[in-house]
Parts: sequence; structure tokens; C-alpha cells
Amino acid sequence: MITAPSQISSVNIEYYQVPLAEVLSDAKHGDHTHFEIIVCRIMSSDGVEGVGYTYTGGKGGRAIYTLLNDEIRPHLIGLNCADIDAIWHKLQWDFHYVGRGGILSFAISAVDIALWDIKCKRLGQPLWQVAGGASNRTNCYAGGIDLNFSEQKLLNNIQGYLDRGFEAVKIKVGKEDYREDVARVRAVRALIGNDRTFMVDANYSMSIDEAIRFGHAIEDQAITWFEEPTIPDDYQGYGKIADAISIPLAMGENLHIIHEFIYAIEQAKLGYLQPDASNIGGITGWLKVAEMAKQANIPVCSHGMHELHVSLMASQPHAGYLEVHSFPIDQYTKSPLRLEQGKACAPDTPGTGVDFDPVLLSPHLITQS
Amino acid sequence: MITAPSQISSVNIEYYQVPLAEVLSDAKHGDHTHFEIIVCRIMSSDGVEGVGYTYTGGKGGRAIYTLLNDEIRPHLIGLNCADIDAIWHKLQWDFHYVGRGGILSFAISAVDIALWDIKCKRLGQPLWQVAGGASNRTNCYAGGIDLNFSEQKLLNNIQGYLDRGFEAVKIKVGKEDYREDVARVRAVRALIGNDRTFMVDANYSMSIDEAIRFGHAIEDQAITWFEEPTIPDDYQGYGKIADAISIPLAMGENLHIIHEFIYAIEQAKLGYLQPDASNIGGITGWLKVAEMAKQANIPVCSHGMHELHVSLMASQPHAGYLEVHSFPIDQYTKSPLRLEQGKACAPDTPGTGVDFDPVLLSPHLITQS
Repeated sequence: MITAPSQISSVNIEYYQVPLAEVLSDAKHGDHTHFEIIVCRIMSSDGVEGVGYTYTGGKGGRAIYTLLNDEIRPHLIGLNCADIDAIWHKLQWDFHYVGRGGILSFAISAVDIALWDIKCKRLGQPLWQVAGGASNRTNCYAGGIDLNFSEQKLLNNIQGYLDRGFEAVKIKVGKEDYREDVARVRAVRALIGNDRTFMVDANYSMSIDEAIRFGHAIEDQAITWFEEPTIPDDYQGYGKIADAISIPLAMGENLHIIHEFIYAIEQAKLGYLQPDASNIGGITGWLKVAEMAKQANIPVCSHGMHELHVSLMASQPHAGYLEVHSFPIDQYTKSPLRLEQGKACAPDTPGTGVDFDPVLLSPHLITQS
Repeated sequence: MITAPSQISSVNIEYYQVPLAEVLSDAKHGDHTHFEIIVCRIMSSDGVEGVGYTYTGGKGGRAIYTLLNDEIRPHLIGLNCADIDAIWHKLQWDFHYVGRGGILSFAISAVDIALWDIKCKRLGQPLWQVAGGASNRTNCYAGGIDLNFSEQKLLNNIQGYLDRGFEAVKIKVGKEDYREDVARVRAVRALIGNDRTFMVDANYSMSIDEAIRFGHAIEDQAITWFEEPTIPDDYQGYGKIADAISIPLAMGENLHIIHEFIYAIEQAKLGYLQPDASNIGGITGWLKVAEMAKQANIPVCSHGMHELHVSLMASQPHAGYLEVHSFPIDQYTKSPLRLEQGKACAPDTPGTGVDFDPVLLSPHLITQS
């Protein structure tokens, strides 16, 4: 454990485009052909390297890279690595005029995760301990991006999750004819049996009335949550859906400002909150939302980036389910996610435990500092 | 007037950093040493050039440039120039995952304004006519960025506005000791006399209690509006301030999503709405907010970019006051803002009427397509 103060001595940014093995689709973002990773490497004056990053579904990464590389970098040099919360607020305010969410939130997330990596490494502890320490494992589910799959391919995909040991799965909904969604939900429930956990995700493709109609149609299928039924900005609309159906609602991946979570908690009547550390301002932002969820007696969950969220989710006593995402990030790290009896295990190495493999990732490098 | 359809045949982006003659300060964004302009030039297949742009107070412009140049540009080529609303929605959804405001809203604004410029030029009409046609002039005020000025310099600055023909002025507030703000307000009111219009702007530097205390302390000074007393995200907090003081509240420059204006109208009890076409999604976004303001019986105003907003404000029957901003944009266009008897006159040339002078602006070019 290192206790002397250290400063940020260098910041380097890398931008990757990682191809997907097949095109993945959901109801609102269209086809995904690749995903983007923007890595922020911070070196401390006492020689500890912190690795932070954010990701996108394929668009906006170049602007995140530019914001980090050309504009945020000079604001960081010389700051005390341990002043993580102060740096978080400084970046929020320095860039507030073009911020309040959006691309700035992704950029701040990458910086913040790098600083947490340094913090954990200097403490000699894994992230799950430093962030809360409730446990080193967490409930999880496999989240498919599968709306374009035929029903047979969907079922094969779900069977693949079961074969890998998952005890919970989520599918996309939002077909043009909602009765097709209903049939797919019933087919998946029949496949996984009565005891496994099952969620659906509409990627805000429905109106309030459509969401209520669909909710009623699958209410007998023991659905754990109905994710993003309608546009996430309409908090009061979520409240209306929640009042009308008995399936808990979930959202959070598209809320990138802490204030938006305040409104979501107050007005949207959610059953689960799903902040994403890659776009809510890193680990600092995610933990702020986790604390708000605890105060509101709502389980905290996650979106994407399971290689990092596994540690955050494990750390929290009120964790719901970790999303194990469809983007094949595990092919590019030295520590792919490990399941034990259906639970995801947090890495025990000091730091975030996310260790990108340069041999595997570097072929996809587009540009760097 | 041209009626045949035309497609977007080329898109070129330019990024400028324009120095300010002196450092300008407000309560939250700190010192401004320069401002940024990001220009989007769209050429139609029938040879009409549309000039759109956005601006910032000095940060984030490189990322806006990258988003426009590297990512949005390929999405535009070949689209019908007249499908302005469809293009607006397409860009919002294509980039939604990194969007919902922030830098994406600035980028979409630049594209949208260029398309409106083409639309007006093809119609052979000025923007004030195409956007609504209520009038070709509008009430306006000079908005100082003057929090760092001594009281004497503040008064000299205000006298300069009066000498130029302004009948309404706004000053920044948010000094460490609010009694200094009160003294400055009284000194300015004494200088401008009882009949001129006077607003104050705290740039969200106050808590709710501080804003109420300050509001009470200046209630006898005939203040037309109290702008951004507290953080714009706290709509319900605005409502509490509005309930406690008799000065109308105003905000909008930091709301970059249409849904945020819905919540502001419902909950913040505002007396004036201030969308900014450079960050609410261009003219399309500004007019959407103007329509919402009309439905809610609230005057619509503007923030910044007066060389463009003068036409939008003139076009609306429920316009409040145009902000004439402190950034010296008029030094770089061929048509500086013109006042007549205290009112701002909209340009009568076909298009937006904003014609950057390449000789004056090009020395500040940083990069371009």
C-alpha cells in the first residue's frame, strides 16, 4: 500500500474499432457491425499505470477520442491522482457548456476509471473490495442483442447461454407486430424452464400504450423486468406504464447525468436502476447512482462493460443482476469473465481487473496519442 | 424560387478559435479568452450553398468538429436537402447512444442551420419570413459577461450599451458576497433610469435559498427576469424559487434536448424560455421549443448567436427579448446586427442572413475538411 501523494504525469488515449463476428440488432440503434473502445492510460508520478476506458456501439468514438486527447488531457497533468471526486467535478464544470451528458460523460468515464485503477493498485486491493466489499461475486444474466435473429436462431443462442452456465437471460423485443414478440417470449420461457430468470428489453421502441399492451400480454411469463419500454426521457410515462402492469421496469443506460437518475427515481417508478460506468462518469458516477438506489430501496444493476461492472456489482449489498453483454470484449482481455454456479466472479487482482491484451487488441487500433 | 428536389452533394467543416479582446467572466464557466466557431457548409446538387454553424465559449469545439467531419458527414451525402425534419430526427437517432444532448446537439445544430439556409435561399426569402413571418424586428437587450468587472467598469460598459442605442441590458451576478451583487444591481438601475428593461443572470451559481434571498433583495428594482438562478437540471428547484419571489425566472441555454424543455415548462415555472439554436438542434430545435412556449403562454427568447436569432425572434408573435451577446461575432460577418429605436432588425437577404467574412475570419481557422 502506497500512501505518499502522486500526480498525473502523463495521459495517453487509444481509439479502437473492434469488428463483431456477425451483425447484431436491436429495436432502436439498428445494426451493429463493430464496437468502439476508447482507452485512457494515466501514468502517476510514482510509476503506477491506470487503465480506463469507455465504449460505444459503433458511433461517436472519434469525437470521444478527440475530446480526451485534444481537450481534456491538458486539464489533467499535474493533478493529484487521489483527488478522484474533485477531478470528476472539475471536468464536469470545465466542459459543462458542451456537456451535461452526451459525449463528455463518456470521456469523463474513461478518465475516472483510470484513476480508480491507480487508486486500487496503490492500495493493493481489487476493485470489488475498494468500491464496497459486499461480496466478490454477483448474480448475472446473458443479454442478447438478437432482435434480428429468427426464432430458431434466438432459441439456439439462448441454449448457448445455458450451456455456458447462465441462470438468467434477456432478449430484445420491439418487433413490428408485438404478437411476434409475445411468441418469442413464450418460446424462450419454454426453453429455459420455470425456474430461470428472464428479462425483456425494448430499447425504447414502444409508445406508452404499446408498452402496456405488451406488458399485459407477457405478464404470465414471470418476467423479472421490462427494460426501456419507451423513450428514457419520459420519466412520467414510465410511471404510467409501471402503474398499469405488474412487471417491474428497468432503465439507466441512456441517463448520463446524475440529475437524470434523481428524476428517474422520483418519477419513473422503476424496479431496477441500470447505470453504465462507461457513460455515467465512470466508477465515481456509477457509485453515486448505486448510493441513490440504496436510499430509494431499488436494486442497482448495470449495462454493458461486464468485465468492469462485475466488480462494482459484487461490491454492493443491494446489487440486482449484472448484464453480461453481447459485445465480445472477453476475447480481448487477459481475464475473461468467469462464472461459478451461475454467478459472475470479480477479479482478485489489485486494480479494476480489466487487463486488455495488446496482442489481441492492437490489430484494431485506429489512432492514439 | 426553386422547386425541383436537390440532394446534399458535399459537406465541409471548418473550425475557428476567435480571440476575445479582453478576458470575460461569469459565475460558473470561469474566464473566457476566446470563443469557438464550427462552420458546416453544405452544397446542394443544384448549386446552392448553405452555411450552418455552432459556437462554444472556448471548449469542446475540436470534438464537435471531429463528430461533424469524421462521423456525421458520410451520413448526409445524397439526402434530400428539403427533408430537414427527417434529417434532424435521423441524426438524433443514429447517434442517440452517445447523444441525448451534449456535443451531438451542437453538431446537429450546425447541420440543421445549413439546411435552413439552403431552404430559404431556394425560396428566395429571408429566414424571418420562412420561420414564421410575424415581424422583421424584435425587442433586444445587451447581455454583458461582466462579473469580473469593477463596479465602475461595469457602469462604463452599460453606458456603452446605452450609447449604442440599447433600451434593455443584462448583467451577471453571483459574487461571493451577494450584497455586492445587490449594490451592482442598484447602481446599474440608477444609471439606466426607471424606464429601461433590466435583467440579471446568475449562471446557476446559487442554491435555492441563496437565489430566494437575492431575489427578495432586488425585488424593488423592476427586474424583468432572473436568469439561471440555480443548476438548470433542478426543474422543481426553479419552481420553488418562482413560488417564493416575484421576479420571473428564465433559462434554456443549457437544455439541449426537447424533452428537457417539456420538463422545464411543466415544473420550473419559468417566465421566459431561452433556447439557443446553436445547441438545441438548430433552427428546427429552436422552433420546436418556440411552439411549446406558445402553447404554454410563455414568451420565447434566445441565448447567444444574435446574428441568427434576430431572424427567429422577429418571426415569432410571442417573442420576448433577443440577447445581443458579448462575443464580438459582428466583427466577422458582412452584416453586423443593426438597431433601430432599440429594436434589432432581421436581415432581408434570402437565407439566414449570416454571411461570415472570409478575410476577417480565416486568420482564426484551426482546421478544416
